[in-house]
Amino acid sequence: MTNSSSRDRPGEFALIARVFAPLSKAAPGAFGLTDDAATVALPRGHELVVTTDAIVEGVHFLPRDPPGAIAQKALRVNLSDLAAKGARPLGYLLALSLPGRTGFDWLKEFAKGLAKDQREFGIALLGGDTTATPGPLTIVVTALGVVPKGKMIRRGGAKPGDLVFVSGTIGDAAAGLALLRRKSETPRALIVRYRTPSPRLSLGLALRGVASAAIDVSDGLLADLGHIAQTSQVRISLGADRLPLSPVLRRLRGDPVRAATAGDDYEIAFTAPARKRAAVAKAAAVAGIPVTEIGWVGKGEGVVLLDRRGREIAVARRGYAHF
Amino acid sequence: MTNSSSRDRPGEFALIARVFAPLSKAAPGAFGLTDDAATVALPRGHELVVTTDAIVEGVHFLPRDPPGAIAQKALRVNLSDLAAKGARPLGYLLALSLPGRTGFDWLKEFAKGLAKDQREFGIALLGGDTTATPGPLTIVVTALGVVPKGKMIRRGGAKPGDLVFVSGTIGDAAAGLALLRRKSETPRALIVRYRTPSPRLSLGLALRGVASAAIDVSDGLLADLGHIAQTSQVRISLGADRLPLSPVLRRLRGDPVRAATAGDDYEIAFTAPARKRAAVAKAAAVAGIPVTEIGWVGKGEGVVLLDRRGREIAVARRGYAHF
Repeated sequence: MTNSSSRDRPGEFALIARVFAPLSKAAPGAFGLTDDAATVALPRGHELVVTTDAIVEGVHFLPRDPPGAIAQKALRVNLSDLAAKGARPLGYLLALSLPGRTGFDWLKEFAKGLAKDQREFGIALLGGDTTATPGPLTIVVTALGVVPKGKMIRRGGAKPGDLVFVSGTIGDAAAGLALLRRKSETPRALIVRYRTPSPRLSLGLALRGVASAAIDVSDGLLADLGHIAQTSQVRISLGADRLPLSPVLRRLRGDPVRAATAGDDYEIAFTAPARKRAAVAKAAAVAGIPVTEIGWVGKGEGVVLLDRRGREIAVARRGYAHF
Repeated sequence: MTNSSSRDRPGEFALIARVFAPLSKAAPGAFGLTDDAATVALPRGHELVVTTDAIVEGVHFLPRDPPGAIAQKALRVNLSDLAAKGARPLGYLLALSLPGRTGFDWLKEFAKGLAKDQREFGIALLGGDTTATPGPLTIVVTALGVVPKGKMIRRGGAKPGDLVFVSGTIGDAAAGLALLRRKSETPRALIVRYRTPSPRLSLGLALRGVASAAIDVSDGLLADLGHIAQTSQVRISLGADRLPLSPVLRRLRGDPVRAATAGDDYEIAFTAPARKRAAVAKAAAVAGIPVTEIGWVGKGEGVVLLDRRGREIAVARRGYAHF
């Protein structure tokens, strides 16, 4: 049992009361973080959707990233999972493993990032845990959402004949990370895509009853569509020239193959029956998020990337592997 | 983005499929861990109770502790929170940050510990995340349970005139840790109390409608009753000679003051109106867990420990502080 302390940081209970309790205000069941657990009531006819994701300093974010942006990333990678499932977010729990050097000012900035996103996404902090660690800063968020019973968009529903879509643009976040590694903070648009991904929550809600399968793009478009292909037992074919690259990435000569294998996009990749093409366009319009048709679903297995002439493009590394 | 690999460990997706997916079998909403999120339906008239706790190697457990016991501890410290709230556990999510050296055999033993406890407590794995870390092994469990709406036992319900109780015995786990630090593995009973605490779930269920306030003893009896005193705005007085110490701890000349400030007990400390003394005894009998009356609730604030003559015993360090 270590009992390390930091001169400029209040103890655990003061930290919870001063920094984190205000974040729980909007959730009556969080009891101002003064209890062992929180209660959450679900609307009638709904079920809970729950997911957890960790981010580790030096692995998923850089030590010098702004604390508010780190907080937002920890939250958003989880909200992105809820988005892809068509769930409406309710709140989240936060488990923080803090190195001894973590100062109070850093934590206040971190909490500001959470507060900002809570307002943006209409969620509240439900509970958490803070502990000391001799290792890197590690942030685990567990996000809770709801869907009408049985309406979660699964990975396993893609059928031969379906079309394949992706929201927004891909490859920006990986390009942003590459820039940061070269100590560049521009183009800003790419840096922002890496540091504060945008969970496509409104699109996910609009895709309920429209998409046959969906996943959020975290490991890379090819890798993540590979999970849909595997779970749905289908083959997915993508046109490389149809992949949506942002103007700024194109200007930097971003390569579609690289963009499709890069990860950290936090877009929604999904399939829908061909007869629902108009419904997909409507969902995109309602959500205010562009959606691009990038391929089709056939019989077989795996994901292939095709050039303009329909020839398969060899891809060495299909996506990010965590170890 | 590190992409470390370990020769004797399968990749993330194989690890999930081989080691963790079998643990999700009993939960249909976990979809065999093949989706982004899990769904959980609640029984009618119930609400969700949710809590999260992290355990860190070198802080909450020792590197040489058996992997199965580490898994059980990660799970049980969370189930203990549900127990103290009178909640029935449903399942849990698991976020694992794994050092590069973590081998496949270690992970299989770890999963065996989880499987054992899943059978014992009637729960299933609902989802999770595995990531590489350059730091120590860090395990975050988020536990989900249910209570009838509004029936969670809170910290804030203690009233002057209530009696104070604690389940089982206190101080054993801390004595076990002290023994392990001296490279001793006996007395076994104390080691087991440290490594695999027993969440008092059946007692928590039996205390619904009986206890006025409850908390699980993790930081130390005095510290944790201090949370009840603070949230309930009351003063709690305890008789030092009434604190339940196990025969083995007494034989080792265990000191009640030390036991009350040591932590890691994972017993339930609770208050109940004096007129419910018989109901408390019945709850203890139904649950098959001994309960001891250790004090009373008065007006004022704080927790005091009294000797036989009613004089306050000075206590320097009231419990475990995480930093």
